[in-house]
Amino acid sequence: MNTSKVKHPLDQKKVVVIGGGVIGASWAALFLANGLRVVINDPQPGIESKVCDYVAQAMPALQALGYDMRAALQQLSFESDLANAVADADFVQENGPERADFKTALWATIERSAPAHCLFFSSSSGIPASIQASQMQSPGRLIIGHPFNPPHLLPLVEVVPNPQTARALIDASLDFYRALGKCPLEIRKEIDGFVANRLQSAIFRECVYLVSQGVITAADLDSVVTQSLGIRWATNGPFLSFHLGGGDGGFSHFVDHLAPGMETRWREQLASTVHFDEATKKLLVEQIESGYGDRTIAQLAEARDEREITIINSARKAAQ
Amino acid sequence: MNTSKVKHPLDQKKVVVIGGGVIGASWAALFLANGLRVVINDPQPGIESKVCDYVAQAMPALQALGYDMRAALQQLSFESDLANAVADADFVQENGPERADFKTALWATIERSAPAHCLFFSSSSGIPASIQASQMQSPGRLIIGHPFNPPHLLPLVEVVPNPQTARALIDASLDFYRALGKCPLEIRKEIDGFVANRLQSAIFRECVYLVSQGVITAADLDSVVTQSLGIRWATNGPFLSFHLGGGDGGFSHFVDHLAPGMETRWREQLASTVHFDEATKKLLVEQIESGYGDRTIAQLAEARDEREITIINSARKAAQ
Repeated sequence: MNTSKVKHPLDQKKVVVIGGGVIGASWAALFLANGLRVVINDPQPGIESKVCDYVAQAMPALQALGYDMRAALQQLSFESDLANAVADADFVQENGPERADFKTALWATIERSAPAHCLFFSSSSGIPASIQASQMQSPGRLIIGHPFNPPHLLPLVEVVPNPQTARALIDASLDFYRALGKCPLEIRKEIDGFVANRLQSAIFRECVYLVSQGVITAADLDSVVTQSLGIRWATNGPFLSFHLGGGDGGFSHFVDHLAPGMETRWREQLASTVHFDEATKKLLVEQIESGYGDRTIAQLAEARDEREITIINSARKAAQ
Repeated sequence: MNTSKVKHPLDQKKVVVIGGGVIGASWAALFLANGLRVVINDPQPGIESKVCDYVAQAMPALQALGYDMRAALQQLSFESDLANAVADADFVQENGPERADFKTALWATIERSAPAHCLFFSSSSGIPASIQASQMQSPGRLIIGHPFNPPHLLPLVEVVPNPQTARALIDASLDFYRALGKCPLEIRKEIDGFVANRLQSAIFRECVYLVSQGVITAADLDSVVTQSLGIRWATNGPFLSFHLGGGDGGFSHFVDHLAPGMETRWREQLASTVHFDEATKKLLVEQIESGYGDRTIAQLAEARDEREITIINSARKAAQ
């Protein structure tokens, strides 16, 4: 396999996007922004206008991130026959239905039809590469490239190889996503939820607990996060934050002085009961409505995207 | 009690800061930035130069946040006699040793000496107001005003009344911190760790788990957070994020479709074993050293402060 290709600029390379839903269309927008030729493979009627609409809608955000989108749509095409679509592909990014039988059959077909140098990525958050690849001749070729929604905006891509994947192929995958301006990070074991969604689940359990216990309202809890932890974690992750929180002694000092108290709190938190039962659902929905119901989902999403772009751009500037 | 005072500008109002360690000195810097007269009460020898040094060091950050610090140090004084210090105080912000016996005796003295309109705040993260106030005549007067470190920078203040606190006093406390440019949020029940630290503990357990299981390195986990969840949470809190993640159906849609999977993951996460045992400590310290050891704590902290200021300023601009 010629993995050196991915180290070159991606301009005019061909990527096939399987599935043109919101994740696939968002990937398509990002690939187009990076000068790739994008072919959408999706049997859904009317897929052309859906994807074109999404890409057009994503353009202002990508322009705000510094991409020249003027020629983007000229590089977009559609091919409903899978074997034809991947025949001369350099990359495949799959975003099909989250069904193991669908994906295993899909990848077996792709492997038969795509060139040997083509890199295979699945956006799946739920079905490990080792399962999806179970009918492939070279299952090690399939790697999860799991974006954080929306893929054209948030930098993270969780790169999860399967146990049979060769080191060179993992590195080529990281190179590919880096060349797209993303921040790919290697997940070294197949695990449910990978990393970001597991962290999100862990914190959300405590969020639901605190609101259901009447400790704080849902909207106020959101503000606690945006006005403290969010600012910290947009800047430094949890380990570096505690490394600095330990003063001159760094993380060792943190562990010696604060870890015992944190372990005690863990025991208490583990002993709490949290369920999405009807009463809890009702309480959360009511509080979220009363906190945010004066704005539409579209207005709130637009405000979020603007703020996220500002933070992403300021992080890039700081890294220069 | 004349709570209307706190709705007026704070200029020339007097705040007594008990304890001039890093938290107290950081509060002092913020109070000075807002035009308050600040009196430090701390028996420690050499406290004057320690606090002045801290304030001088905090000035660039406060200037970057838009404060005029030129006359700040002229408003700073020291009074080692507690009764004298609080005799004409408008506000007290306590940052003494985290010992219940110390704090209960302290507040009884303060209550006897301070004017009736004076607001009483403790920065304590560990000793509830109801315990600290147990020897006061009017225990309801004492409220926790728990900052997020460093107080002069991060907007959050967790305002935790004790069960005897009157509504008007809670509102006056929120007004005070708002007038300082902070984001005060009411915690409605006394609970260990309040909200921010509980959320931080909950997520950190999973962080330690994932690194100790070899799923990801500590520095890569930090990057997962800064490149996805941190950007999201600096913008919108967890509830609003899932409200928008639910698309047009909002949070109801999220609960119906994603909550069952999250509950399954919670069960798995609760069943995991995580301890700061020697092997885990060693692994974490080594990975943090190898991820960040090329920079000093001071360099890393300076970079963090710069980034945090940028994010705080961009949030303020967006809110205008």
